[in-house]
Amino acid sequence: MNATLLTGIGLLATQDPELGEIENAALVLDEARVAWVGSARQAPSADLHVNLVGRCVVPGFVDSHAHLVFAGDRSAEFAARMAGMPYAAGGIATTVEATRAAGDEQLTATVARLVEEMRRQGTTTVEIKGGYGLTVHDEARSLAVARGFTTETTYLGAHVVPPEYASDPDGYLRLVTGPMLAACAPYARWVDVFCEPRGAFDADASRAVLSAGAAAGLRPRVHANQLGPGPGVQLACELGAASVDHCTHLSAADVAALVDSGTVATLLPGAEFSTRSPYPDARRLLAAGVTVALATDCNPGTSYTTSMPFCIALAVREMGMTPAEAVHAATAGGAAALDRDDVGVLRPGARADLVVLDAPSYVHLAYRPGVPLVAQVWKDGHPV
Amino acid sequence: MNATLLTGIGLLATQDPELGEIENAALVLDEARVAWVGSARQAPSADLHVNLVGRCVVPGFVDSHAHLVFAGDRSAEFAARMAGMPYAAGGIATTVEATRAAGDEQLTATVARLVEEMRRQGTTTVEIKGGYGLTVHDEARSLAVARGFTTETTYLGAHVVPPEYASDPDGYLRLVTGPMLAACAPYARWVDVFCEPRGAFDADASRAVLSAGAAAGLRPRVHANQLGPGPGVQLACELGAASVDHCTHLSAADVAALVDSGTVATLLPGAEFSTRSPYPDARRLLAAGVTVALATDCNPGTSYTTSMPFCIALAVREMGMTPAEAVHAATAGGAAALDRDDVGVLRPGARADLVVLDAPSYVHLAYRPGVPLVAQVWKDGHPV
Repeated sequence: MNATLLTGIGLLATQDPELGEIENAALVLDEARVAWVGSARQAPSADLHVNLVGRCVVPGFVDSHAHLVFAGDRSAEFAARMAGMPYAAGGIATTVEATRAAGDEQLTATVARLVEEMRRQGTTTVEIKGGYGLTVHDEARSLAVARGFTTETTYLGAHVVPPEYASDPDGYLRLVTGPMLAACAPYARWVDVFCEPRGAFDADASRAVLSAGAAAGLRPRVHANQLGPGPGVQLACELGAASVDHCTHLSAADVAALVDSGTVATLLPGAEFSTRSPYPDARRLLAAGVTVALATDCNPGTSYTTSMPFCIALAVREMGMTPAEAVHAATAGGAAALDRDDVGVLRPGARADLVVLDAPSYVHLAYRPGVPLVAQVWKDGHPV
Repeated sequence: MNATLLTGIGLLATQDPELGEIENAALVLDEARVAWVGSARQAPSADLHVNLVGRCVVPGFVDSHAHLVFAGDRSAEFAARMAGMPYAAGGIATTVEATRAAGDEQLTATVARLVEEMRRQGTTTVEIKGGYGLTVHDEARSLAVARGFTTETTYLGAHVVPPEYASDPDGYLRLVTGPMLAACAPYARWVDVFCEPRGAFDADASRAVLSAGAAAGLRPRVHANQLGPGPGVQLACELGAASVDHCTHLSAADVAALVDSGTVATLLPGAEFSTRSPYPDARRLLAAGVTVALATDCNPGTSYTTSMPFCIALAVREMGMTPAEAVHAATAGGAAALDRDDVGVLRPGARADLVVLDAPSYVHLAYRPGVPLVAQVWKDGHPV
């Protein structure tokens, strides 16, 4: 056995209902997996011993919604929006133009920079979407770049209809469900669509995209009900999507569909923060029994944050979540949104991905907003 | 000359109306002062040359309102408040009890930890208040500890009436304006009072505290109009306070008094974030011509953040400030609130305190909320 014993843990938040929270805890990591979790007094011995001196440990964050393959910056659009301009999905076209013009090396460097920035803030699993290329070539190379960083890659050809198809949206839909899908499927695990009644893809188009993706072996996830009420949540539930994301504007029927289907509702408060929009009501979803995940939605237009701790603080301040619920949503919730049971939790057999906080409790992630509290990140059993 | 030339600066935000923002800028630092500011093409030579490769530089942040001398933690109170309990100033008593019980070494270690945490986030000047001792001995030692870290120390014996004086508030006022002031004045530059109609000090008591402090050589600053409308803002203006802090609930007469007096309105959005309260209206103050500062209000009860970047992001999202106004308020505004002209600005003669951002523009402080963007901090002409 080549194991590491971690002791001195003030509070271990395992996010596992059976293990719960453990005060004065210890962890044993065996190579890339958790081997043992429990009270420090009962800890087995190991080859290596690390004392974390009273710090809190939580599972590595699982950021299940991030648009990282892009070029350019939309800080001027952001500043204009803060001065009163409303957000419209059309701003995506700005990033599409810059992304098409960028070389693969530049795109790879941007993803590497953002993934490293995420890791410094405790994220150990990240989903990465395409969606800023919107040609067969540019979507395929976007996903090839993403695949270099994560297995959780998502085909999002149906992000918006690009300008050159403005007068032929049906033609673009044929491209997305045909040659573009064929070129992208080898690099993707998931298929996604931006489903909104206006400015994006309607229910029929969204169904066509998700069905074609499923036929190509991809699993569905959906952007829905961000800008207003719409059919996306119920469509996602009907098609057995692992997650439906945004969920800002929900009807009672939407909530009921989430309960019945078990589809995760992934909330992205960074987007509401950066578009000055009303936040989704997490309390309502939790009260109904829906599984809630938190993710950054990192993208250059509407949520250019990589910080899961920031999203946790917003979830508590703005969406009625307790600190425990928010940390659960940022770890086990994100794992559920990616249909993963090996991350987002610290129990024997799970991946040894964890965050050591410079704080005695995970509550401090909300209690100390904006403060970089991540002292150490362990990935696959080793500090990174 | 023992000077350092900084080049490769993408955008220099000088916060000086005459210099403004400079693209492709250079800075020369001579020992602890700025010697030259301008376009990189006109930069003089220097002994040492540092290339900042396209990053943005802003003045070091000036955090003009922080309660750092305390012991204990109120994360449980925070979690309860997020679950629906309203904030009441009485929670301060919890921290008073822990602070009195703590040794000087423990208090010093806490201040050192928080000042270092602030510095990592770009704060190069900080004001530190007492106010959690509330005995002659405990206030004096609190300020002695604070004086080890900053010249901007503030006597806040009039934070709340401590439990042992609950039935004799006049007796406590005599203590604060008499023996406690005498013991604290040698360690303090400023005198402050928590002026609220209920739960703290009313107008007459506040006037007595500030007048006694002034007679002992201390300059006034005031906590006012946080929890509701009150007399504090107009009192601060009347007495020529450098700053009146919180300003969440303002009448038209309050705004007019700020305009007439030139007293700085220091806004503390971390407190509204962490107490789930409505934010002050910075736009209204700026439109009237009031000088606005931003500060963290770092304290264990109502705003346990040390992050000026977080406060800038909140100011833009929640208080109607542009990114430029928010950065100005966090630098030159904070300096004005401390009546300092040597910090918060980058111009010849000013202190060589600056922040190098891992971003091309200061706009990113609001555009990328929660992300630790501070790449380097220079204090007194040297990286720290």
